[in-house]
Amino acid sequence: MTGTRGTLYGVGLGPGDAELMSVKADRLIRQARHVAYFRKAGNAGRARATVAPMLAGDVQEFPMEYPVTTEIPLSDPRYNELLSAFYEDCAAHIRTLVEAGEDVIVPCEGDPFFYGSFMHLFTRLKDLIPVEVVPAITGMSAAWTASGAPITWGDDVLSVVMGTLDREQMVAAMQAADALVVMKVGRNLPKVRAALEASGKSDRAVVVQYASLPDQSVTPLSEIDGDSLPYFSIILVHGQGRRP
Amino acid sequence: MTGTRGTLYGVGLGPGDAELMSVKADRLIRQARHVAYFRKAGNAGRARATVAPMLAGDVQEFPMEYPVTTEIPLSDPRYNELLSAFYEDCAAHIRTLVEAGEDVIVPCEGDPFFYGSFMHLFTRLKDLIPVEVVPAITGMSAAWTASGAPITWGDDVLSVVMGTLDREQMVAAMQAADALVVMKVGRNLPKVRAALEASGKSDRAVVVQYASLPDQSVTPLSEIDGDSLPYFSIILVHGQGRRP
Repeated sequence: MTGTRGTLYGVGLGPGDAELMSVKADRLIRQARHVAYFRKAGNAGRARATVAPMLAGDVQEFPMEYPVTTEIPLSDPRYNELLSAFYEDCAAHIRTLVEAGEDVIVPCEGDPFFYGSFMHLFTRLKDLIPVEVVPAITGMSAAWTASGAPITWGDDVLSVVMGTLDREQMVAAMQAADALVVMKVGRNLPKVRAALEASGKSDRAVVVQYASLPDQSVTPLSEIDGDSLPYFSIILVHGQGRRP
Repeated sequence: MTGTRGTLYGVGLGPGDAELMSVKADRLIRQARHVAYFRKAGNAGRARATVAPMLAGDVQEFPMEYPVTTEIPLSDPRYNELLSAFYEDCAAHIRTLVEAGEDVIVPCEGDPFFYGSFMHLFTRLKDLIPVEVVPAITGMSAAWTASGAPITWGDDVLSVVMGTLDREQMVAAMQAADALVVMKVGRNLPKVRAALEASGKSDRAVVVQYASLPDQSVTPLSEIDGDSLPYFSIILVHGQGRRP
């Protein structure tokens, strides 16, 4: 290899409102010559949509389309095989660009190191090319801001729980915490609701949808019907700790 | 009351690096006519220092000096009385300005609704004057970014624990989690270390200091001597969950 390598930047976009992007993310995206972003097949992609008004006219785009999202259960070994091959392919393409001297910007919804897909590129590339990660405002920060109340007080223990966790572990985690953030609820809503009831926290649970965006809403869980929530929903249980 | 009221803005500054402030925070602070910020008595104040280069020359400043920080134990009833009176005084001053039509910006370290002091102004003023909260990148996001590894994978449960929590509850919370963030460690380091050992997580614990700032450091807890950590230290235990 000759010449100067570029850098791969994993750039957190935050919760969705472009004004909540960091000054650094804003600068990197506006200056980008190459952007690569994850999206579902057949979908324009939320990360792409957020940055669209900021991209230079001659930017080179590399959409990375998930081969599978919820079509195969997580427990099926094919799920991991398909995703692993997909991340390998994406990483190889990005590595080629960076080794040719280009900077590649990967705009990431939320914060790249907090339950994000960027980590799968990061682990594959961090020892091969320069990688820099730009943290961002998490979706949960936007959710508790939208809820109009601090998530924690004093010594409250806050736990973040995925709706994909198994029922028994979910109940144990919820019982051990004072304040809760539940993400990836989607079609796991019945299980999450039951676990919140079993841990005595369902009365205080609120559902925050599209936090920071114009159609933001905050609804008590008890007023939500049906067996699923849209992908961009977060359930919060606020802490009740010590306060002066 | 006549005329148009202003708005109180609780503006998160993020972890310390000014480039990690949101575009919105950057704009609000540069346009500010009144800023009010918390600080320890005799201290210039970290929030003030972060925004200093951005403030207009004729900005009006209102430092809010804590009457007590660690001089009185949290369990002493005087602690709550002193702090409560202090927050009442600060809220009254801000309310007067906002009712006179001024916007007041309170720059807050970290994210205002995540273990921050702004919540104490918020609860006293939210029903009296317009209040808007601008979320920010948390210190913990900067810490796990500095650590060079995602904090969570797959279904990992992440728990945030304060070093001020009592020992028994701390151990229970640590045992119930896959990944941990421990804040407010300071002089509670011996208790936190013992609780991490009791929960089998001390081997994986790292201490992140001054995340996002030029003197940022990441050190295994096992290499840290002494009985305290500087205020701006966060202990992380990374999750080990499922990954493709």
